[in-house]
Amino acid sequence: MSETNEFKEQVVEENTVVEEQQNVQEESTVEAEVTPELSLEEQQRVELSALELKLDEEESRYLRLRADYDNLKRRTQTERVAQEKYRAQNLLTDLLPVLDNFERALQVEAKTEDAESMKKGIEMVYRSLIEATSKEGLEPVATEGETFDPNVHHAVMQEQDDLKEVGIVLQELQKGYKLKDRVLRPAMVKVNE
Amino acid sequence: MSETNEFKEQVVEENTVVEEQQNVQEESTVEAEVTPELSLEEQQRVELSALELKLDEEESRYLRLRADYDNLKRRTQTERVAQEKYRAQNLLTDLLPVLDNFERALQVEAKTEDAESMKKGIEMVYRSLIEATSKEGLEPVATEGETFDPNVHHAVMQEQDDLKEVGIVLQELQKGYKLKDRVLRPAMVKVNE
Repeated sequence: MSETNEFKEQVVEENTVVEEQQNVQEESTVEAEVTPELSLEEQQRVELSALELKLDEEESRYLRLRADYDNLKRRTQTERVAQEKYRAQNLLTDLLPVLDNFERALQVEAKTEDAESMKKGIEMVYRSLIEATSKEGLEPVATEGETFDPNVHHAVMQEQDDLKEVGIVLQELQKGYKLKDRVLRPAMVKVNE
Repeated sequence: MSETNEFKEQVVEENTVVEEQQNVQEESTVEAEVTPELSLEEQQRVELSALELKLDEEESRYLRLRADYDNLKRRTQTERVAQEKYRAQNLLTDLLPVLDNFERALQVEAKTEDAESMKKGIEMVYRSLIEATSKEGLEPVATEGETFDPNVHHAVMQEQDDLKEVGIVLQELQKGYKLKDRVLRPAMVKVNE
């Protein structure tokens, strides 16, 4: 017999063993009949215990999956709400410099009637832009007269004004913006020291 | 006895019944001992069959939940991608009239140097707005010279120009916009009949 044949026969033998074990597991009553050392009652008790154990395992496997399922459902729901709440964040962040430039352009004084009428048209466009962004949840950070709040204010200058409270924002140097409860950009301010 | 008390007692009774049933299911050997009509072997066979049935049920219950779990995972993933892809849709839709008004304001001719310089400033703001929206996926619908496409074009006028192909868009009357592959607003056009 060649080595190859020997190897094949071994494999066949192993497969047969595996199949036999599977048969035993699937039809466990057959096993009972071919194991004469135990009484039928004892064999059945063994099978019963084995089945009960398997059932317990199956039940805890189900419960674990059930917990995973509920977690997944809860987590995706939370994520969906957050994703929805801040959905416009990227675009709004990109619009902040547009708003800055818009305001700067509108601060230029119109010296002629021609320029004044153009400015009026542009102011209407600006207001419609503000309306669209605020509808999506964008709002400017309150500054002058407010107590300095490091969460929404960035102090870039200090001054001393004895007529006003210490720690009050004296002047806004650049507008800050929030998207709902999230700060997109803190306001740059001058604070009373 | 008041009606409330009667109701409470009934609930208590029902709970007891449920608990008893559970006990029977959990410790089925106890049940076997109190059914003297069957031989021990027969009782055990009955229990074995019952357990095997329960195990089968438990396994298919697990498989059904597994399928539900996989479906939920796949579905939420698909939804997340779509939600992310079109996240800026509402804000962009609200910005379309802003863009319209902006373009209209910029079409006004500047007659003085004063107005001309203001217009230049505003044109820069307009370009930065276009840049921010196109970064988020907004793009105008191509019109003049294109073949009329009812998916993106809305024909509001027709004209006959023998020098041009039939069904070609002759003029754009209002800009249309797409967010990626989704049409936010079709372009209003004049078509060559």
